[in-house]
Amino acid sequence: MAIKRKRVSVIGAGFTGATTALMLAQKELGDVVLVDIPNLENPTKGKALDMLEASPVQGFDADIIGTSDYADTANSDVIIITAGIARKPGMSRDDLVNTNAKIMKSITKELVKHSPEAIIVVLTNPVDAMTYSVFKESGFPKERVIGQSGVLDTARFRTFVAQELNLSVKDVTGFVLGGHGDDMVPLVRYSYAGGIPLEKLIKPERLEEIVQRTRTGGGEIVNLLGNGSAYYAPAASLVQMTEAILKDQRRVIPAIAYLEGEYGYDGIYLGVPTILGGNGLEQIIELDLTEEEKAALDKSAESVRNVMNVLA
Amino acid sequence: MAIKRKRVSVIGAGFTGATTALMLAQKELGDVVLVDIPNLENPTKGKALDMLEASPVQGFDADIIGTSDYADTANSDVIIITAGIARKPGMSRDDLVNTNAKIMKSITKELVKHSPEAIIVVLTNPVDAMTYSVFKESGFPKERVIGQSGVLDTARFRTFVAQELNLSVKDVTGFVLGGHGDDMVPLVRYSYAGGIPLEKLIKPERLEEIVQRTRTGGGEIVNLLGNGSAYYAPAASLVQMTEAILKDQRRVIPAIAYLEGEYGYDGIYLGVPTILGGNGLEQIIELDLTEEEKAALDKSAESVRNVMNVLA
Amino acid sequence: MAIKRKRVSVIGAGFTGATTALMLAQKELGDVVLVDIPNLENPTKGKALDMLEASPVQGFDADIIGTSDYADTANSDVIIITAGIARKPGMSRDDLVNTNAKIMKSITKELVKHSPEAIIVVLTNPVDAMTYSVFKESGFPKERVIGQSGVLDTARFRTFVAQELNLSVKDVTGFVLGGHGDDMVPLVRYSYAGGIPLEKLIKPERLEEIVQRTRTGGGEIVNLLGNGSAYYAPAASLVQMTEAILKDQRRVIPAIAYLEGEYGYDGIYLGVPTILGGNGLEQIIELDLTEEEKAALDKSAESVRNVMNVLA
Amino acid sequence: MAIKRKRVSVIGAGFTGATTALMLAQKELGDVVLVDIPNLENPTKGKALDMLEASPVQGFDADIIGTSDYADTANSDVIIITAGIARKPGMSRDDLVNTNAKIMKSITKELVKHSPEAIIVVLTNPVDAMTYSVFKESGFPKERVIGQSGVLDTARFRTFVAQELNLSVKDVTGFVLGGHGDDMVPLVRYSYAGGIPLEKLIKPERLEEIVQRTRTGGGEIVNLLGNGSAYYAPAASLVQMTEAILKDQRRVIPAIAYLEGEYGYDGIYLGVPTILGGNGLEQIIELDLTEEEKAALDKSAESVRNVMNVLA
Repeated sequence: MAIKRKRVSVIGAGFTGATTALMLAQKELGDVVLVDIPNLENPTKGKALDMLEASPVQGFDADIIGTSDYADTANSDVIIITAGIARKPGMSRDDLVNTNAKIMKSITKELVKHSPEAIIVVLTNPVDAMTYSVFKESGFPKERVIGQSGVLDTARFRTFVAQELNLSVKDVTGFVLGGHGDDMVPLVRYSYAGGIPLEKLIKPERLEEIVQRTRTGGGEIVNLLGNGSAYYAPAASLVQMTEAILKDQRRVIPAIAYLEGEYGYDGIYLGVPTILGGNGLEQIIELDLTEEEKAALDKSAESVRNVMNVLA
Repeated sequence: MAIKRKRVSVIGAGFTGATTALMLAQKELGDVVLVDIPNLENPTKGKALDMLEASPVQGFDADIIGTSDYADTANSDVIIITAGIARKPGMSRDDLVNTNAKIMKSITKELVKHSPEAIIVVLTNPVDAMTYSVFKESGFPKERVIGQSGVLDTARFRTFVAQELNLSVKDVTGFVLGGHGDDMVPLVRYSYAGGIPLEKLIKPERLEEIVQRTRTGGGEIVNLLGNGSAYYAPAASLVQMTEAILKDQRRVIPAIAYLEGEYGYDGIYLGVPTILGGNGLEQIIELDLTEEEKAALDKSAESVRNVMNVLA
Repeated sequence: MAIKRKRVSVIGAGFTGATTALMLAQKELGDVVLVDIPNLENPTKGKALDMLEASPVQGFDADIIGTSDYADTANSDVIIITAGIARKPGMSRDDLVNTNAKIMKSITKELVKHSPEAIIVVLTNPVDAMTYSVFKESGFPKERVIGQSGVLDTARFRTFVAQELNLSVKDVTGFVLGGHGDDMVPLVRYSYAGGIPLEKLIKPERLEEIVQRTRTGGGEIVNLLGNGSAYYAPAASLVQMTEAILKDQRRVIPAIAYLEGEYGYDGIYLGVPTILGGNGLEQIIELDLTEEEKAALDKSAESVRNVMNVLA
Repeated sequence: MAIKRKRVSVIGAGFTGATTALMLAQKELGDVVLVDIPNLENPTKGKALDMLEASPVQGFDADIIGTSDYADTANSDVIIITAGIARKPGMSRDDLVNTNAKIMKSITKELVKHSPEAIIVVLTNPVDAMTYSVFKESGFPKERVIGQSGVLDTARFRTFVAQELNLSVKDVTGFVLGGHGDDMVPLVRYSYAGGIPLEKLIKPERLEEIVQRTRTGGGEIVNLLGNGSAYYAPAASLVQMTEAILKDQRRVIPAIAYLEGEYGYDGIYLGVPTILGGNGLEQIIELDLTEEEKAALDKSAESVRNVMNVLA
């Protein structure tokens, strides 16, 4: 019984998907399958080959396969979904939701067929609803379908705080609940620099500005780029979640998880602190919330429900 | 006298420049300044910020600055030039040369003003001539102006050989002289898998196919992508050269260096085996060549001279 | 002006010193000089050579020099002092203090002569007093003489908590003030798992047991080993402090620093939260303490004063 | 079916075994079980705990278990055997062989019981015979029982050459066949710096000195240390072989493998170039030898046979 490499499939070979694939390979987490639609098969193969050609220089061993054939994803341990369209000018939110949900469904059908034991991590927006859509379509237990938003949101928050205090990013932590971006519920009282609560180090109004900048952090990048959205930090976030699973690290990571009573919600996907490990979602961590925090989380949950209703 | 981080500037914030900046920061080689033209200042800032937001997740400490102001590059230890246009359909080679040479000159003027002690690594094509152009404009000694091509060419060769033999890329080496791509002069007899000469492991005709695929390796990616060219492996190659310099590693690396009699050429930049370290180009390694190899290198040198004549 | 590698000298080539040297080299933080007394020159050279012979396999470039000649430490950027004797049965604490202080003085005299700009990190016990002794003898500003204890104490605490909660060590943090070991003043309210205060996750009596185990963590290892004391975690701790300095990371790290009024003490070295960067000690972070914490810190400070009085 | 960490057991908790355990954990290759005899159970636990306490500082997640109970090794993927005695003054070679063979047998019996699917890597000297002994006792196929000697021998050779040429160790390779140390058969013609055959870079007599120094490289360390033998480079060598297996890297690595006709020998373990991957020994690479090389290899093989005869 030979030892085999793990296999991770990344669905969607745009900037985020491609960057994710490279980062997975650089860490030698396993072989990587980068998948996009048949029309984009050649560019997908081109990106995969270019990455592979970086491997002798950077010294990593990993197959990186570019493909449009889901058969190549067979027996993936983890699958990362980045596919989907971005909202275009003039497009209603509901159109976006329905289009991406349709994409999630067709992708999931294929994925499940070839990798019935995989753990799926979803990035596609609106991410709470899209994770739910994959969950439903896959028939997988909730442990094996989660979404990304909190790692990225806290990464932005940590970056801004580290700059504000002129400290290493390694020593700044952040904490969020709820949805991505605007709906983010920051728990500033659980955010620290070197273990010291930020509230002791940064004035309230300045801290509020940083929180607000975090909320609109995705938009800040979109505005600067002019054409497209962030991909480096999103990719790094997906890779951290994947590494926690593949190495069974039992890390405490904010993730979009299916709630069945936790925090008082039932039957929705929402961003909560979790433990990620070899089972995927190992545990949801429940915290006492202040009234204000609970109210913000309610709003976030409601906003998720509204999107879910579009799906139904 | 406080200890300060090294500073690396990357000129040109396209895919290659941006990927290079990220890889430099990930390795904590120093602070990184990513520069592009004023028209692209915002996207450049956007990419830099997105990378910075990946830093808490990936755990690296580095400032990454997006700018169009050369003053931000002040006191760079190493400068990497990726700027320039790609050849477009209908554009003559001479037009490409002249346009990029003009860009090299104006960039170099600015760089030299702000970082008179820097070591410059050039990627812009046609790279031999562009490195010469930077050398002339900078007035720097030849030790501090080099070009990249051999790391990338051998990386592609190593990838193809590793696939052919189903071996780790870590154990396959390659060796090239001369120009980039078509003009590449492969020294297959100095290329090995696990120390075993490839000629003992792969049949001549198959090896020749692999060499030929390497020669057109850049074009292979261009054709697959459909729109744009390789950037992952080129970026990794630039970073390896930069790391060898910043850490004074005295690595044996094929680089485009200014020849003054070596290999029988004088006054041209050509790809040769070098030692890279804290002085930049520490040494050019001279090898005995077979007649066939010398003839191929002559052809490569002539082709560089032809481009240099366009410049004059 | 060529780029040169940083240089780190490690004084004392016992297990801790040798392990520290290896970890520094593995991270390519610079060249490493491992120093011990003339009687131990050969074993010191042997350890250095053995490490060097690991470098091709692990892929790091660093000179590692074993020596008994302080001239080899010339122009060190950082110096780590691990030399000194351990308390033997029947030896009074005062004897230990006086013997090690004598060693500190003679070492420091040599070090200062050859590396007048170095930053010194002291590990030798009793570490607060020994750091003071080096400070006095060196004539260096307080920014350039610090001691290690808090990184190790929190590392042990974090390990025990991670085991208790079955979580990744990456997500558990700890916080201590005051002296090493018995005199340690844990700030449990500033210690977290995934950002969540430990007090919400572990019952008070169990948490107190973990704190107590941390206090005697050094003794636990001594008892298990039967002969000798811990060196892996101490070495890792020294390397983290050194890396923060050499890469100017401005990390928040508990260190033994010279207090001039901070926390109400003057003229003593004591463990406090600091920012470490390219200047060595960049800043002491002052925190509000509870009465209980202040009382414990007073006791810790008094105990340092008592040792210092032995020195006088 | 949750994703589980790999498990590596290291038998023998002396300096080599302990250093190996730490390096495995630092690379997050899996959980590590460090085993020694009941009399040394406490020191073994102490070393394991000290390493674990380094993990929060160095940022690796791995259980490290110190034990004398083979049940703790259950379901190991790879097992590394470093146990055994060193030759003492006055001890005949045959006594050494018989003592260590007895140890191999008793260890192997236990290991096989608990990990019937493991791949075993042997370091204990005389390593060819001890690997054979484990092979016989285990009843494992030859793919799953190999020995270490060539990685270490070439590491020493590479170190000396890199020093001689003042080059990065990353760019120097070496190649050996046959037994460890004195019996080593260096293939200098397959050894390079930057791909250039060493014979073109170093004069024959100097190269012979380096080969000779490599042959006695273990003794050089023993003489310097005065008490004990090398452990850093041996540990790094074991870890490289283990990593190649656990990550199925198919690396070209000189290893002690069971020959059945290869190189004209049958039924003995001898150092040969191999491919190591997820099956353990994936392939033995056969090379044409010069008469001189074949004669040296014959001598090496005979010397192994002589030791094997002691066993019989």
